[in-house]
Amino acid sequence: MVEHIAIVGCGAAGATAALQARKFNRTVEITIFNSEPYSQYSRCGLPYTISGKVGKFEDLVLMPPDNWAALKIDAHLGVTVTDIDHKSKKIIYTGESEGEVLSYDALIFATGAVNAAPPIKGLDKRRIYGLRTLDDAKALSAEVGKAKTVVVIGGGLVGMEAAEAFHERGLDVTVVEFLPHILLAMVDSDMAAIVEEHCEKHGLKILTNTAAQEVKGDDSPDSVVVQNRDTQDVIEIAADFVVVATGVRPVTDLASKIGVEIGPTKGIKTDERMMTNLNQVYACGDCSENLEFTTRKPMAGGLGTLAVRQARVAGINAAGGSVTFPGIVSAKVTKLFGLEIASTGFTEDMAKRFEVPIVKGSVKGGTKPPYYIGGKELKLKTFYSKDNGKLVGGQLVGEEDAAMRLNVLTLGIQQNINANDLFDFENCYAPAICDTWDPLVTSADAARKRLKM
Amino acid sequence: MVEHIAIVGCGAAGATAALQARKFNRTVEITIFNSEPYSQYSRCGLPYTISGKVGKFEDLVLMPPDNWAALKIDAHLGVTVTDIDHKSKKIIYTGESEGEVLSYDALIFATGAVNAAPPIKGLDKRRIYGLRTLDDAKALSAEVGKAKTVVVIGGGLVGMEAAEAFHERGLDVTVVEFLPHILLAMVDSDMAAIVEEHCEKHGLKILTNTAAQEVKGDDSPDSVVVQNRDTQDVIEIAADFVVVATGVRPVTDLASKIGVEIGPTKGIKTDERMMTNLNQVYACGDCSENLEFTTRKPMAGGLGTLAVRQARVAGINAAGGSVTFPGIVSAKVTKLFGLEIASTGFTEDMAKRFEVPIVKGSVKGGTKPPYYIGGKELKLKTFYSKDNGKLVGGQLVGEEDAAMRLNVLTLGIQQNINANDLFDFENCYAPAICDTWDPLVTSADAARKRLKM
Repeated sequence: MVEHIAIVGCGAAGATAALQARKFNRTVEITIFNSEPYSQYSRCGLPYTISGKVGKFEDLVLMPPDNWAALKIDAHLGVTVTDIDHKSKKIIYTGESEGEVLSYDALIFATGAVNAAPPIKGLDKRRIYGLRTLDDAKALSAEVGKAKTVVVIGGGLVGMEAAEAFHERGLDVTVVEFLPHILLAMVDSDMAAIVEEHCEKHGLKILTNTAAQEVKGDDSPDSVVVQNRDTQDVIEIAADFVVVATGVRPVTDLASKIGVEIGPTKGIKTDERMMTNLNQVYACGDCSENLEFTTRKPMAGGLGTLAVRQARVAGINAAGGSVTFPGIVSAKVTKLFGLEIASTGFTEDMAKRFEVPIVKGSVKGGTKPPYYIGGKELKLKTFYSKDNGKLVGGQLVGEEDAAMRLNVLTLGIQQNINANDLFDFENCYAPAICDTWDPLVTSADAARKRLKM
Repeated sequence: MVEHIAIVGCGAAGATAALQARKFNRTVEITIFNSEPYSQYSRCGLPYTISGKVGKFEDLVLMPPDNWAALKIDAHLGVTVTDIDHKSKKIIYTGESEGEVLSYDALIFATGAVNAAPPIKGLDKRRIYGLRTLDDAKALSAEVGKAKTVVVIGGGLVGMEAAEAFHERGLDVTVVEFLPHILLAMVDSDMAAIVEEHCEKHGLKILTNTAAQEVKGDDSPDSVVVQNRDTQDVIEIAADFVVVATGVRPVTDLASKIGVEIGPTKGIKTDERMMTNLNQVYACGDCSENLEFTTRKPMAGGLGTLAVRQARVAGINAAGGSVTFPGIVSAKVTKLFGLEIASTGFTEDMAKRFEVPIVKGSVKGGTKPPYYIGGKELKLKTFYSKDNGKLVGGQLVGEEDAAMRLNVLTLGIQQNINANDLFDFENCYAPAICDTWDPLVTSADAARKRLKM
């Protein structure tokens, strides 16, 4: 019987693992460590503290520190785990006093990820930030009061959500994206182009296919030097401060050191029980790697939804239970200037990487029947395996009901439906809500004809 | 080989059957009859012509009459089929000239439904209407300009949507519902009570558990006499005009006459090919009866979504194809004063009638994470078979994203998922969209614990 679970990290993954372990097992000792001085807070909510759509920083804290004691979970906040001796099953940590030691039977890595350091000159100045921690968000909110211009390096989800927030607060915002389009980890180029046009129409400046080369200035930024990768033209963009959002890398050093296997995505390799190659050592959330749902090939998660689902599995199993994680579909959504962007399963690019030939159903539809005033345009694509017609992905962009429609596709992927099944889907219908044949169904129809189903 | 398809009725079902038959078979002769002078229009859109959310009556016409000729479909509008001689396979119709005759090989009944006549005195006056036809909607829109008060008898979907429209146009509206709650064909009492409170807060008067006894007045209404079924109290409600929306009955007289079997729901009995007991005689839409998805017991459709899906199957099969209709889940939605009301599969009452013992997962959740400003409350229930844990129904009420969430449940029912499958659903998540554990997942969690899954 497990007597003591140690959890390294108290983000969404770590905190959920602790809670679920306690729910499952009332007597096991549980200790959780967090190098940040905070208890679990919503990382995805950080950009909205800047725009004001989250009222106070404290609102993001989902687990008030006092609650841990009530759950008989020993929480060490602002404490860094410096070493682990897995032979003797001991954790060495510092922060309260030096070199404290704790014994464990079961260990959960929920160490998350940190911002990757991009090869850009001059990043060692003041007023250059990431947007990954509550302290980052506090610093950025303070900047909004005094700065006029900001350059956001990286047009992924975090970069774009931050850019929207700064724009809403009245700053002059430029997003610099190295790749030909923003959000390419999430959607295909055609969808990304729609999003870019929409954001630009709302006043955001976006430079795609552009490399940030250097942040100029003395102790703080004056400008960012960027180069267009096609034309080789170099320009300087004024910036009172800079946000770097060029992606993250999983934190795996401690795990690696004790012999935990790191997978091809650079995350900690886990099985369907969220266990690593070492018995009773688990990993979950952004530091981990699991399996893509359809192909069962290695895939990183990097999403809050996955973190809490994997953490539940890790926490229960560590506490003596036996549950499994079904694999990663990777449903991603965001909303930028009122436009919903949604993607699940494979993008076209991912399908190539995972070597799954696909057939597409592309549709330009409406969220409501054409005769009803006020419906919005909806652009969507659904993807099916060429081999067996199974649904493997989909993307939607529209000013309403794009994200919620995505949920149908995600459940469909999880239930192994094919194009015929989606065509037979009995979507809800009412003039004020949706048309008789939902665009999802129409896209399935287009694909099943191409698939000759 | 079929040479001539005759279709009786040109609503959503008839028109779709004709179009799909033509798509499938370019040479077969197709004749379609409609007793109304119009071609296919959206019946569900009618209330919105009154409120102005549909701009013009013509916008509702989905199939302009001229298009039939282009598709080589012989459309007879404003023409009544008076008799059918199925032995010699001849249709007798009138309207253009007397007693015309047409031969057919395949016959499709898409005769729809008509308003049931409730046992209320004084319904033979002017200014008493149904809301089922384009002419009804035109007459009601004309009333809005001159009337001040209206009583809507019947608080089902049509009655409530009409009531909302009149209220939006400034009329004093009272809904009289015989049953203890409105919308009981769609949702359970607890959900209906939420809707009633919401509509009343917006100024609508609703009398539930109340029998309309008589419409008083000379040649047009002065008032409606109603009696509370509990207290027996009788009151009179002033009404310049009256709408009767107490339900419909399928039109089956011609079908019945030629020996087509009528089912226990009083609709034309059909199999999974939408064929009746007579070879090459089909039925679809509101006049028909098919099978409930889970139990495979007889069920009436009465929804536009089902009409077009059944009609596609009937049309293709009549034209020589072989496709099937998967059965009726019955996903129903509407929006009243900004509140979305959504129901799929069984209600609690239906589950009893279909003899399926159920276990519930009830949740009061939010459409967005609690820290994000502007999310709305969402009340929802999901139902599972007590015997095997399979999802068999669900209901949601909320001011946003209730209907689109319903789609997940409907697909889930169609894919035979159980409470564990829904708990494993990887819903999309972003602060501006939805929380990490969607209320749908939370409700599945509540139920699977009760089911001991």
